[in-house]
This record gives sequence, C-alpha cells and structure tokens, in this order.
Amino acid sequence: MNIIDIIEKKKNNLELSKEEIEFFVSNYTNGEVTDYQAAALIMAICINGMTQDEILDLTIAMANSGDVLDLKDISNHIVDKHSTGGVGDKITLIVMPIIASLGIPVAKMSGRGLGITGGTVDKLESIPGYNINLSIDEFKQNIKEIGISLMGQTLNLAPADKKIYALRDTIGCTNSIPLIASSIMSKKIASGADSIVLDVTCGKGAFMKNKEDAKKLSKMMSLIGKWADRETVCVLTNMDEPLGYSVGNTLEVIEAIDALKGNMAEDVKDVVQNLCVQMMNLSGKYPNILENKGKILEVIENGKAFEKFKELVSKQGGDVSYIEDPNKFEKAPIITPVLSEFEGYIEELDAEKVGKAGVELGIGRIHKEDSIDSRVGLIFNKKIGDEVKKGDILAYVHATSPEKAEKCIEQIKEAYKIGTKKISKKNIIEII
Amino acid sequence: MNIIDIIEKKKNNLELSKEEIEFFVSNYTNGEVTDYQAAALIMAICINGMTQDEILDLTIAMANSGDVLDLKDISNHIVDKHSTGGVGDKITLIVMPIIASLGIPVAKMSGRGLGITGGTVDKLESIPGYNINLSIDEFKQNIKEIGISLMGQTLNLAPADKKIYALRDTIGCTNSIPLIASSIMSKKIASGADSIVLDVTCGKGAFMKNKEDAKKLSKMMSLIGKWADRETVCVLTNMDEPLGYSVGNTLEVIEAIDALKGNMAEDVKDVVQNLCVQMMNLSGKYPNILENKGKILEVIENGKAFEKFKELVSKQGGDVSYIEDPNKFEKAPIITPVLSEFEGYIEELDAEKVGKAGVELGIGRIHKEDSIDSRVGLIFNKKIGDEVKKGDILAYVHATSPEKAEKCIEQIKEAYKIGTKKISKKNIIEII
Repeated sequence: MNIIDIIEKKKNNLELSKEEIEFFVSNYTNGEVTDYQAAALIMAICINGMTQDEILDLTIAMANSGDVLDLKDISNHIVDKHSTGGVGDKITLIVMPIIASLGIPVAKMSGRGLGITGGTVDKLESIPGYNINLSIDEFKQNIKEIGISLMGQTLNLAPADKKIYALRDTIGCTNSIPLIASSIMSKKIASGADSIVLDVTCGKGAFMKNKEDAKKLSKMMSLIGKWADRETVCVLTNMDEPLGYSVGNTLEVIEAIDALKGNMAEDVKDVVQNLCVQMMNLSGKYPNILENKGKILEVIENGKAFEKFKELVSKQGGDVSYIEDPNKFEKAPIITPVLSEFEGYIEELDAEKVGKAGVELGIGRIHKEDSIDSRVGLIFNKKIGDEVKKGDILAYVHATSPEKAEKCIEQIKEAYKIGTKKISKKNIIEII
Repeated sequence: MNIIDIIEKKKNNLELSKEEIEFFVSNYTNGEVTDYQAAALIMAICINGMTQDEILDLTIAMANSGDVLDLKDISNHIVDKHSTGGVGDKITLIVMPIIASLGIPVAKMSGRGLGITGGTVDKLESIPGYNINLSIDEFKQNIKEIGISLMGQTLNLAPADKKIYALRDTIGCTNSIPLIASSIMSKKIASGADSIVLDVTCGKGAFMKNKEDAKKLSKMMSLIGKWADRETVCVLTNMDEPLGYSVGNTLEVIEAIDALKGNMAEDVKDVVQNLCVQMMNLSGKYPNILENKGKILEVIENGKAFEKFKELVSKQGGDVSYIEDPNKFEKAPIITPVLSEFEGYIEELDAEKVGKAGVELGIGRIHKEDSIDSRVGLIFNKKIGDEVKKGDILAYVHATSPEKAEKCIEQIKEAYKIGTKKISKKNIIEII
C-alpha cells in the first residue's frame, strides 16, 4: 500500500477502504506521509466527498491516532457535551455544574479559543488559581469525589485530527462537512464519551452560516455517532448574535455565575435547558424527558448547581471568594458605553463583527501563540428585537486603552443594525 | 489576493483569472506559497480541469518564472524540437544535424534521462570530451559559426514548472493533460522557440499509453502554441517497442552515427523524416512540403548531415575520431546474446519492460542523483513483425557484470512475446 495510489484513488472518485484510510491517518500522524500529500488527498476528499463508510473509518482512525481516554472506572456511561463554537458561548460553565448536581458525572476536557470563537479553558483561567492542567489521575479522582472536573486537553487526543485540521485551514478546505463531522466526533470518541450532546451553532458568528449546512453537519455527526455506537444528539442553536449579554473571559464567568444563581438571559436559558434535557436523557438516569426541565429549575433554585460550581473551582485550586463575590474580579481600566445614534429596533447584532472586535480588544487569539487579556470584553444592553432610542446605551466596552476602546466602539456600532422592524428570534432551531 | 482564496475558487470549479494564476506561479516559485498549498491547488486542477484561458495563462506564467532565452540575434525564427520521451529515442542526435545542414539554425537545450526515458545530454556525454555545459554566449557563438549547438539546460528555465512537475509526481497528479501540456510548452517558450515540432510518443514505453490520450495531449499543445503565437505541430509516434535497434548511451550514439551515414532502421527513418519535414516547413525556408523528404535524403547521401554532426562534436570539445571510428568507443565488459526459446513472429517487445531492464543495467536513473554507465545497453536483432526460430539471437545485452547480464537476459525474454501472428507496425500514428 502506498500513499500515491490512495491519493489517485480518491482523485478518481473511488471509495477508499478502511485499511487505506488507516494507512493515511497513521502515516500522516507519524510524518511518513508529507503535508503536501495530505493536502492533495484532503482536496480530493473535499471535491469528491466521502461515503458513509469512509467517514466512519476516518473518524475512528483519527480517534485512535493518539491517546484514548478510558473513563469506565468512573462511570459506565459518560455523557459529553461539545459546541461547534460561537461568540459569548459560556454554556459549558453553566450546563456542566447543573448536570453534575443532578448526579451525572461530568468529565470534560475543553480547548482554548481561536479566532472569534471563545474557549472554556480561557474562561476558567480567568478565575484566580484555577488549575486547568491536571494529571489524568487527578482528573478522575476529582470526578470520583465531587462528580465533576473541567480541564484543558493535556492528553495527546486525536493528533491526526489536529494535523489535518491545521492543514485544512491553509488550503481552503475548512468547509467540508465530512471533514468537520469526523474531526469533532474523533475528538469526542478519543476523550471517552459514551454519548454526546452537540451544540451545533448556526449563523453569522458560527462556522456554519446557514441552517441547511448546520442541519447537514448535524445529521452526519448523528450518523457517525450511531455507527460508532455513541448515541449523539445535535441541538442546533442560533449564533447570529452573541449568546447572552457578555463576551470576554472574566465577563463571561461572571455571567455564568449569575446564570447559575437563576438570572439567565433568555437565549442562554433556552440553550442551557435544551442541552441539559438531552444530556439527562442520554445519561439513562432521567428517562422521563418531560420532567427534566423541572429538575433543572430545581437544582438552580435550591442552589445545588451553584454550589457544585464552587466545589469545582475550589477542588481545582481556584479562589472561591471570587465566585461568591464577582466584584472581586479585576476590571479593565477603561469601561465606556456605546451609544445608539438611531431610534428603532435592533435588527442585527452581527456576532462575527462582535467576535472580530473582541479579538482586537484582547479577548481571543488570531494565532495560537497570541496572549489574551481576561479583563477585556463587551457587555450588551441591547440585543436583537430590543427597542432603542437615540442616545441609549447599546453596550459597554471594557478595554485596556482609550485607543482600543475607541476603535471597538466604532466596530460595535457597525455590528448593530437598527431599523423599524421588531425581529423575533428563535434560539433553538432544531434538535436532530 | 491570497492563495487560500485562489485554492477555494478552483475547488469550487470556478475559472481562475490571469492575475490569480500569475500570483500562484510567482509565489510558489519564490516559496511564499507552500508545497501543501500548491498540492491542494494542483489536485483541484486535476479533478476540475482548466479552461483554455487558464491553460494558456499557466503556460505563460511558468515560462516567465525564470530566465527566458532570447535568440533573436541568431535568427528571427528558431524551430525547436521536443520529444515526450521514450526508450531508445536518439532522434535528436539524427534530426538536428540534418536540420542544421539544411541551413536552419539549431539551438537546442536537452535534458538528462529520468526513469525509463533516456536523455540526449546523457548520450552526448558518452562522446569523450563533449562539453554540455556552455555559457549562453558560447552557445550562441557556436550557432552563429556552425549553425548548431546541443547543450544541457544550464539556464534557470521555467523553475515554476520544475517545482510543480516534481510535486505532481508525489501526489498522484502526473496524468493531467492540461498540466502535462503546459509543462512542456512552458519550457519550449522559455528556451526561445518561435515554432515547435513535438514528437508525442505513444505506447507501452511512453507516458501516454493510448492513442486517445496522446491525441488529446497533442491537440492541447497545438492549441497552446496557437494561442501563444508559437506554431506547433505534433507528430504522434509509436513507442510500443524501443525505437531503432539500440538502447543505451554509447550504443545510441553509434546508431545515430550509422543513421547519419544513411543506415537507418525503418522506424527511426519514419520518425526522422516526419519530424524533419515539419521542422523544415515551420522554418519558412522550405515551404514546398512535397520536396522536403528529397532534401533530407540529399544531405544524408552527400554526407553533409554527418559532417555537421562531426562539426558539432568538434566545436563542443568532443573527440571526433570516435565519430569517425565508432569502434573506438569503450565497450561494456560483458556482451552476451539473448536467445529465442520459441519459434514464430515477434508480437510484442514491451518498451516499458526494456526500459526498466535498461535502468537496472545502468543506462538510466531512478533518482536524479543516481550514476549511469555509458557503455551498457541493449542491441536488438529482432523487433515486432520479425520471424524467429528457436535459438535465434533476439538481442545482445551489454553489461558490467555476469550477474547483471543474467538478470537482464531474463527481463528481455519477458519483454518479448513470440506468437503466430505477423504483426504490422505503424511508426507514425498521426500529425496534428
């Protein structure tokens, strides 16, 4: 077997065998197959597509290309949650303590943000002392003791996916649904998930810009889950505007604390409830799906979800006094409002434009090695559908310098579209 | 303009603009575009094809990616000749002195052999003293003085083509007709040709295995020539069996000497005459195509073509005594016959198998850095259509060791297919 024959086969739109896909994945991981050979094969896949068998074989081969986490000593059924990424997406920080407080073990490895998409690990690190670098033994021990751990990806999970993902970015092959689906599912399978709830974001601030593509991707991931014996549910959520009222690492932790105390923005509430309901159902512990929303409300109202979050922070070395009194979080030196120049209704708050403005403020990274600032970000007073008068505060910019604040104000003004129509929003698009 | 957008455009089967193609070619040449980006684009081109405009733009961009030879001070109309490669192809050594002796200036840069395909430069270097490394000034001076020079490719001609060609080999993209056509034509344009006669080989020992592909390639090269204002004629020649009676560097020089003295194998004669007729016609000096064959015979019979070859060898430092007495050429230590085990007619003499056996003997290179042996090779007594009896000598192997000779004998036996049918051959398939 050699890589040139495999590339030519795909070029000629023939189906690759399991062995050929494994050959490519293992030899690309170890460097025997070069980047340019992988690039040629990936382009052929992008153009000619893949059959269901090929997609499954690719997913499994990538999942097995590095470490595979075994969590069977913690639970015989781990439910994982993953979001395809968005602006202001602090959902993991809210959903996971709720799930853990319902007695479902939470073992989650999260990533850092890249581009306009935030990352849970960056948000957690804005809590003073919080340690995202646990050993696997510590990770498991924490879950055994308090039922939850949220950490960074210290393991060498699906390294083939990492290489292929990075390559795709440089060769115009990011928007291939078979490649996106296998990328996400390979990481989930490698991180020990038995069943998976996927938050598939859709809209201006998401990777999938339209509903059709988001549905296609969701269906493919659900199928891969089925074939790989990992039950998978996709919740398609709206990402036209940022999620919740904050964007920024510290600011989103504060919003999550608020949410766990029961004060959730409407869109956040919708997403949190729908994800939790599905996770509860998949866990096997809460088979009566109609009762699940009530149970979620219960652990929020009785404070158990918030207590679980504090337990988590404390267990991983974080200073709980910040969680108890969010005013302790260090603020950005400049906090300045963005004022409306028009009167009417908010018709648009472009999440992509907000995300890009946020990156320039220092929330996120353009390149992996860029440094970020936990303090900076945006607080939105007005979102799609809200009525505004001239001079109303649309948002607050939290910045490190007057120049950055000034530029951001302009960018945020451009992200808003104020018109005469009162737009109605749909936070949850579909469940697949 | 950026390369990712260009790659995506071709991935989506849209036509690239002239500027986009130039951007790719110049930035790949200077290393700004990486090999993996080029690989992705080339794969997209292979699958989605190219329009006529794209092919022409690619050819011209590659031709202009390095030095472009200007021969206007020698002649206002240089006719070049190029073969797509074959086994036993010594045609340049015969055609070029004929053409020069007819008063048409010959300025030819040739390449080395790679794989089963021989190279004119390797053959010329088997003449003791012959210098293939001239400066451009010497090259031009020689042409001015004696009307001919044959040298190696010392110039940085079409470096983009070199990089793309090498890359295609490693990513299963060799058999793309737009890419082959633009590769050949870019080199010819860069080397200063005003009109071009292409010997498009077709058959087992050629790149194009069947007539249909050879015709497609020929039509495309003729079109590129037309668009680029370089009149181009393609002579499709048969390469199912080796051309002429010898394969090997010294052995082919000896056959060329023999041919220039008037003793040409039938297939060599057909190819030489047809190429010469077309070159004479394109030069503008011999417009009456019906008379051209007679003129060729004339310069062979009156010795002018052979004299021109001796002049060329002498001018480039070669020892003419070898040309006058080919017995002086050093012989391989082992010369041993291949005997027929069967009776009947030669139905096949597989040029690819002969080529591979020849490479193992030391005629050619598998890798660029491999060394070769001028002395080794094969002399064929029997070719397709010939009758043989059991025990007849099919061929002679010229080798450096008994082991190599033994192995080669077996390989040559396998290249022959002896049956009951008397096959008729067609040396010239078509002129396009």
